Amino acid sequence: MTVTLLLHCPDKPGIIADITNFITENRGNVVYLAQFVDRVENVFFMRIEWEIDGFLIPKDKIADYFRTLYASKYDMDFSLYFSDKKPRMAIFVSKMSHCLFDLLSRYSAGEWNVEVPLIVSNHPDMKHVAEMFGIPYYIYPITKENRLEQETAMMQLLEEQNIDFVVLARYMQIIGDRMIAKYPNRIINIHHSFLPAFVGAKPYQAAFERGVKIIGATSHYVTAELDAGPIICQDVVNISHKDMPAVLVNKGKDLEKIVLSHAVQKHIEHKILVYKNKTVVFD
Amino acid sequence: MTVTLLLHCPDKPGIIADITNFITENRGNVVYLAQFVDRVENVFFMRIEWEIDGFLIPKDKIADYFRTLYASKYDMDFSLYFSDKKPRMAIFVSKMSHCLFDLLSRYSAGEWNVEVPLIVSNHPDMKHVAEMFGIPYYIYPITKENRLEQETAMMQLLEEQNIDFVVLARYMQIIGDRMIAKYPNRIINIHHSFLPAFVGAKPYQAAFERGVKIIGATSHYVTAELDAGPIICQDVVNISHKDMPAVLVNKGKDLEKIVLSHAVQKHIEHKILVYKNKTVVFD
Amino acid sequence: MTVTLLLHCPDKPGIIADITNFITENRGNVVYLAQFVDRVENVFFMRIEWEIDGFLIPKDKIADYFRTLYASKYDMDFSLYFSDKKPRMAIFVSKMSHCLFDLLSRYSAGEWNVEVPLIVSNHPDMKHVAEMFGIPYYIYPITKENRLEQETAMMQLLEEQNIDFVVLARYMQIIGDRMIAKYPNRIINIHHSFLPAFVGAKPYQAAFERGVKIIGATSHYVTAELDAGPIICQDVVNISHKDMPAVLVNKGKDLEKIVLSHAVQKHIEHKILVYKNKTVVFD
Amino acid sequence: MTVTLLLHCPDKPGIIADITNFITENRGNVVYLAQFVDRVENVFFMRIEWEIDGFLIPKDKIADYFRTLYASKYDMDFSLYFSDKKPRMAIFVSKMSHCLFDLLSRYSAGEWNVEVPLIVSNHPDMKHVAEMFGIPYYIYPITKENRLEQETAMMQLLEEQNIDFVVLARYMQIIGDRMIAKYPNRIINIHHSFLPAFVGAKPYQAAFERGVKIIGATSHYVTAELDAGPIICQDVVNISHKDMPAVLVNKGKDLEKIVLSHAVQKHIEHKILVYKNKTVVFD
Repeated sequence: MTVTLLLHCPDKPGIIADITNFITENRGNVVYLAQFVDRVENVFFMRIEWEIDGFLIPKDKIADYFRTLYASKYDMDFSLYFSDKKPRMAIFVSKMSHCLFDLLSRYSAGEWNVEVPLIVSNHPDMKHVAEMFGIPYYIYPITKENRLEQETAMMQLLEEQNIDFVVLARYMQIIGDRMIAKYPNRIINIHHSFLPAFVGAKPYQAAFERGVKIIGATSHYVTAELDAGPIICQDVVNISHKDMPAVLVNKGKDLEKIVLSHAVQKHIEHKILVYKNKTVVFD
Repeated sequence: MTVTLLLHCPDKPGIIADITNFITENRGNVVYLAQFVDRVENVFFMRIEWEIDGFLIPKDKIADYFRTLYASKYDMDFSLYFSDKKPRMAIFVSKMSHCLFDLLSRYSAGEWNVEVPLIVSNHPDMKHVAEMFGIPYYIYPITKENRLEQETAMMQLLEEQNIDFVVLARYMQIIGDRMIAKYPNRIINIHHSFLPAFVGAKPYQAAFERGVKIIGATSHYVTAELDAGPIICQDVVNISHKDMPAVLVNKGKDLEKIVLSHAVQKHIEHKILVYKNKTVVFD
Repeated sequence: MTVTLLLHCPDKPGIIADITNFITENRGNVVYLAQFVDRVENVFFMRIEWEIDGFLIPKDKIADYFRTLYASKYDMDFSLYFSDKKPRMAIFVSKMSHCLFDLLSRYSAGEWNVEVPLIVSNHPDMKHVAEMFGIPYYIYPITKENRLEQETAMMQLLEEQNIDFVVLARYMQIIGDRMIAKYPNRIINIHHSFLPAFVGAKPYQAAFERGVKIIGATSHYVTAELDAGPIICQDVVNISHKDMPAVLVNKGKDLEKIVLSHAVQKHIEHKILVYKNKTVVFD
Repeated sequence: MTVTLLLHCPDKPGIIADITNFITENRGNVVYLAQFVDRVENVFFMRIEWEIDGFLIPKDKIADYFRTLYASKYDMDFSLYFSDKKPRMAIFVSKMSHCLFDLLSRYSAGEWNVEVPLIVSNHPDMKHVAEMFGIPYYIYPITKENRLEQETAMMQLLEEQNIDFVVLARYMQIIGDRMIAKYPNRIINIHHSFLPAFVGAKPYQAAFERGVKIIGATSHYVTAELDAGPIICQDVVNISHKDMPAVLVNKGKDLEKIVLSHAVQKHIEHKILVYKNKTVVFD
């Protein structure tokens, strides 16, 4: 079993030495270490993972010890993740299957250390896919009138099911501020454009009309401002004047599913740190 | 010697047959043919190039014949370019050398069927590069007060020198409406972002602040609206949280010079058609 | 309904005019036209598709007429495909699910004009995936001893099921010469390297050992020589010294599935022509 | 002024802590730190750079101290580079100008902390380019008969001029074993293919004949085996059936110059470590 420590703090001399000494002297075996100093903001970021079999500090005391010994000293923001705890992921979907299939095919192949206890949708269209994979499918139709009420019900479901994070797999509804506030940097969206170009609805049509020669897709954490949250991954594909909007939609689907799944993978692996609306994504 | 015919018109049956028959029956040997139908706009685009040695219609009558026989019939917009006429290209530059060197190194290696009789700048900084390549360098310092006057002088220079098109090789001044009107789809700019993201000044800083994971460069024809003209080429490069703004600037330089030179090459080869603020760029 | 004509022949003046006239004069409405002249081999390639509702030549006579009027004259190799005939595709798979899921998710979403009546494997591992999609799954375990016999049985199954083409979705067995001969340019394989680098087994390990900075995947038609058939699509992804072989395998999976599915799509759309072990792939 | 320490050694706990403590306790200000553990080979790699103004150990003693205190303890292979020492780079070229111009335009723009005291060629063709940039140009025509003799003369020139490393900017001659032995991991070549595909002469022709859909370029350190040295950078570009060999050559030129210049930049920045015929290239 391993534990992963994610942290950031104002940059100072000695942090790396202190942390690596802490682990080594307590007989932890480091299996991953990545650090980064943002020299514009003067912030130090680190991800370090070590085997805790034989670690001198008991598993349930590591956070306490670390806080007392180092986090206070360096004014750190930190999190600990144990590899035996599988995060619980909810998928939200509307009517398109490509991202949903991509997520579930990885999940069912055992590629990810995650549990998917439920799928939520505003439409019944994807129920058959959920059933293929044996995952409960909850339908919350959304109208102008019932939006708040339905969101309350959805949040209650997530709460009951101990959901850790949410993946919007082309879920075509705005997420309300309450839910965003409850899951900060825990709701991952895929936007079907190369953000910040073509924010909002119909980005492929907009890309076609502008005559761009490359289209893209962007995965990001959802924040209160539409399509403006911290970007996790982006990818692009060349297009030409020959590609009509329907072709852009098709080419874009392949980008969307890969870019979303990459973001989900990085999130599951605890390799993403967020600072001031930007991400640090370790390899 | 060859002639290249570029045209667009409302799509109708029979155009391709008519044009290829016209050339073949008059003993032209087709060496290039590309066509495209925009089925959204219902517009037909074509580039066809043929050898005119032995062509039955005299070189200076081809335009007349073609207009009479086909252009009227199909309501075509067309242009003819003879391969023995080298287009004359002016380069505008400010203080950065990377695009300038890239253009001139291709030119001096004889890669392009073009003449570069002059370089224009608002600063003296690049004079030594112009001198290395033996090209006259004209300095027109621009201030708020003298902008119109200087532009008049620049236009006069272009006129006297029979300039066919202008390449803005990181020329950091706005081009005035008169010059744009005089050289429609003949002024090529490189913008150092993936348009339409980050229009205007300091796009790398803006990209850094937004936290994008990919940056780009865009070559386009200059129109009255800033950074909104028809896009010719785009290219991108991956970046990460590790890349501070100065790194983006450096990585971007390589994109800029290649993307600008590709656009210039396509322009010189008469492979670009413009329609409704978009380009058709043939291979 | 449309018909698609694919052809190649020695390049001569007049072919395009003849063919477009043939269609237009018989009241066909052209919806797609792409042509290409290989000026090294002097071969003309064309794909033209037209609506046959109202076409003056009856559907079942088109091939005859075309052969008589043009194919003989120009020494053409041609094929006709009617849009109401869905090709029947067999998938061969071994133990990995990523390509299989990618193919079936597109198929089940109705993205492709194809039927998938069966899946063949040398292992039982993917049976559950076939069942999820309701597709019969046939297991033919292969040993050194039974290879020929099993291949005979497989060929009989393909015959009985009127299979038009076969997709090897990471099927880890050599296809025998008889089957290749029976399905020329109709067996599509995905090789997990950027061919011609790393032919044969364990390409990711070989890429790791060579220390390349980019890995790739290649879809191609299967020919008698291993991994040497006509290449249809390729794609690549950047890697670094940090990526151990297991990471290459994971990054490669995303390439493989996309590159295979793109090739399958082009094949289904009848946009691939093969000539002298190379492909012409129209947009 | 800064000093850069590059090292590798068998991985053990405590290395990072020891090294960062060494610098911090002697009042060095770390401005760059990157490390990597190859868990297949169990080797630790590091690049660390710090400001030495105020460093307690005198500049000329740092190597001694570091060797005594740490390098012996951990069995390290290490190098130190001071930022006030500009490496001296020789360029070898034959007849093509694109890589040469790209290198010299960066050099003359002051982008690189390097000196270029000389250019060597087997042909007079690029003399005018050397003259444009004011760099001495030495011609050593190579024949079967005089190869060894000329190489001796070239090595003597490099020796006299205190050359630190050599860049082969499309130099179309084999480098002899003596020169390779004298400049291990100090001769950078650009090969115009995506290695290990298309080793040796005429790779674009070979790529055309194989019908690949992507071509590439590879920069690497020269070793005794042709085109088999440690790869530094690679890049690729999409091609299609439309691209005849001459087009591949042109598209390839843009790759070659960028990929070579990137390798040179990484080398100048001391960001490359070589281990067992592979490179670790830090960001």
